[in-house]
Formats: sequence, C-alpha cells, structure tokens
Amino acid sequence: MMDESLSCPPLTDGTALAVARGTLRLFARHDMAGILEVPLPNGRRADIMAIDGNGRIIIVEIKCSRADLLGDAKWPDYFDYCDRFFWAVPAGFDLSPFDGEILWPGRTGLIVADQYDAELVRPAPVEPLAAARRKAETLRFARRAARRLSALSDPVLGV
Amino acid sequence: MMDESLSCPPLTDGTALAVARGTLRLFARHDMAGILEVPLPNGRRADIMAIDGNGRIIIVEIKCSRADLLGDAKWPDYFDYCDRFFWAVPAGFDLSPFDGEILWPGRTGLIVADQYDAELVRPAPVEPLAAARRKAETLRFARRAARRLSALSDPVLGV
Repeated sequence: MMDESLSCPPLTDGTALAVARGTLRLFARHDMAGILEVPLPNGRRADIMAIDGNGRIIIVEIKCSRADLLGDAKWPDYFDYCDRFFWAVPAGFDLSPFDGEILWPGRTGLIVADQYDAELVRPAPVEPLAAARRKAETLRFARRAARRLSALSDPVLGV
Repeated sequence: MMDESLSCPPLTDGTALAVARGTLRLFARHDMAGILEVPLPNGRRADIMAIDGNGRIIIVEIKCSRADLLGDAKWPDYFDYCDRFFWAVPAGFDLSPFDGEILWPGRTGLIVADQYDAELVRPAPVEPLAAARRKAETLRFARRAARRLSALSDPVLGV
C-alpha cells in the first residue's frame, strides 16, 4: 500500500503513470486525444491535457495520495486553461474528499483508474474558455505533440 | 541512382524518408513543428503537415522522381488545406521543372533535402486559409499527433 502521508509528484512513480494510462484509454473511447505533462503559460503543468472532437480542452490532475490532494492549493489555476477539469486517482483511493466544497464538486469531474482502464465516476461540466485562449492552447498542444513525435524518430530533434 | 521513369510513392522508400527527415530538421530551426503522412478531408494525404508559431499551416509534397512530379495532377488540392506549400526533393534532383508555370513558381516554395539537413531554395508565400478551415485543420492535427504519441506508449491505443 502507498504511504498516504507522503505526496507523490504526478507521473514520477508507477501509480501515477498507471492512472495516466488508464485515463488515456478511457479518453480514447470518448474520442478525447491526450498527451502527458503539458507545461502551461502560468507556470503550472497539466498531468494530462486532451482535446475532444469539438475542440474542447480537458485537463486532468492526477492525485495518488490524500496528502498531495489536500495540500495542493494551486489546482484552481488549471481552470484558466481548460473547458473541463477532472481529478484522476488510483483504485482504492478514498473518494470522500471530492464531495467537499473545497474541491469544487460542481465544477470538477472524477476518474478512478488503474493501468488497464478507468471509470468515469463523475462527469465534468463544460465551462467554456474564451475562444482566443482555446485557440492559443490548441496551437500549443498541436505543436508540442508534433515536436514530441519528431523527437522520438530523430535524436537531433530530441528535447 | 534512382530510376526516374518510375514514380516513388512518398515516404515508402528511403529517399523520401530522408527528404522528410531533413525537411523536419530545417522546419524545427524555423520553429515549424511537423508530422508525416497526414490524411486530408479531401482524400489526399500530405507528406508533411507543419504548424508554425503563428498557427500557419504548411504542407510539403515530397517528390523523388521527375516522373512522379510531372505525372501528379492533384497537388493543387493541397492549397485548400495550407497557408504555405512547399515542394521537397532530394539533393541532385533537377530543379528546372519548378520554374515552369505549370508548377506555380510564384505560389510554391522549394526545399532540397537529404537525411541530414535541408536547404530552403525558394520560400513559399503565405496564402491565408479561411480562419474556420485553419481552425479545423489545427484541431485535426493536434488530435492526430496526440493519438500517434499515445499509440507509441500504449499498444491498446495503437492504430
């Protein structure tokens, strides 16, 4: 079992990576194409950023310990860069905090995932970004994903 | 030497792949992020589609034989999906056809490439797409690049 007294920085351990993989599989079934660890202009980094077929931007914050969840005061910053926001946690995680007002249950979706798949426990409402912001973020996403692909096939372009 | 009497379908042989790699390196230096073999809504497939920092879409058609170049009547279809269009050919290719009016020298750029690098022989003018078309293509590009990345790290998502 994970030591819940310690925070685990997202995507640096196996649990977070497993949650990311399961979430991307869920998203793929819902026609949402995502990439991992996306730096944002505000200095934050989205664990997952995805775009659906209508161009809506989704951000997922992965939490794998209760301490990390309750100790993070910066997650509302993500709302400036997405149309929908989800929490994603590993199977077995205590979900009761997500009903607390401090975690905005009316504005955040909730996903429970493992390395094989994920369950959409609570959908996220759409809170539309300004069109100019969505356009800018879509462009950044497109170029970042392309650079990552190129880097995989050409070491000279690796970053 | 290549048999110039035969067309070589882009990116299926080493020469075309080498031209693609060199071109992507050139593009990276010019802050253009590209991906290969992008199907378009009109049924064509762009050898390279790239997006620059201003969101402009670039399409590159790779030609590795004179017969393929002069026998292709469909390349003007690309102009419906890009702001700038380039030809890219391998080093040693006879460039004289690109000055002929039939290949629109005033509207097409020209790149000469090998596997190591590429030279911008003639810049391509910008012929701006309608904003709605550029938006739709940027979205398709973003989602396609993300799906390709996911497929590389998760066989379940492979396509």
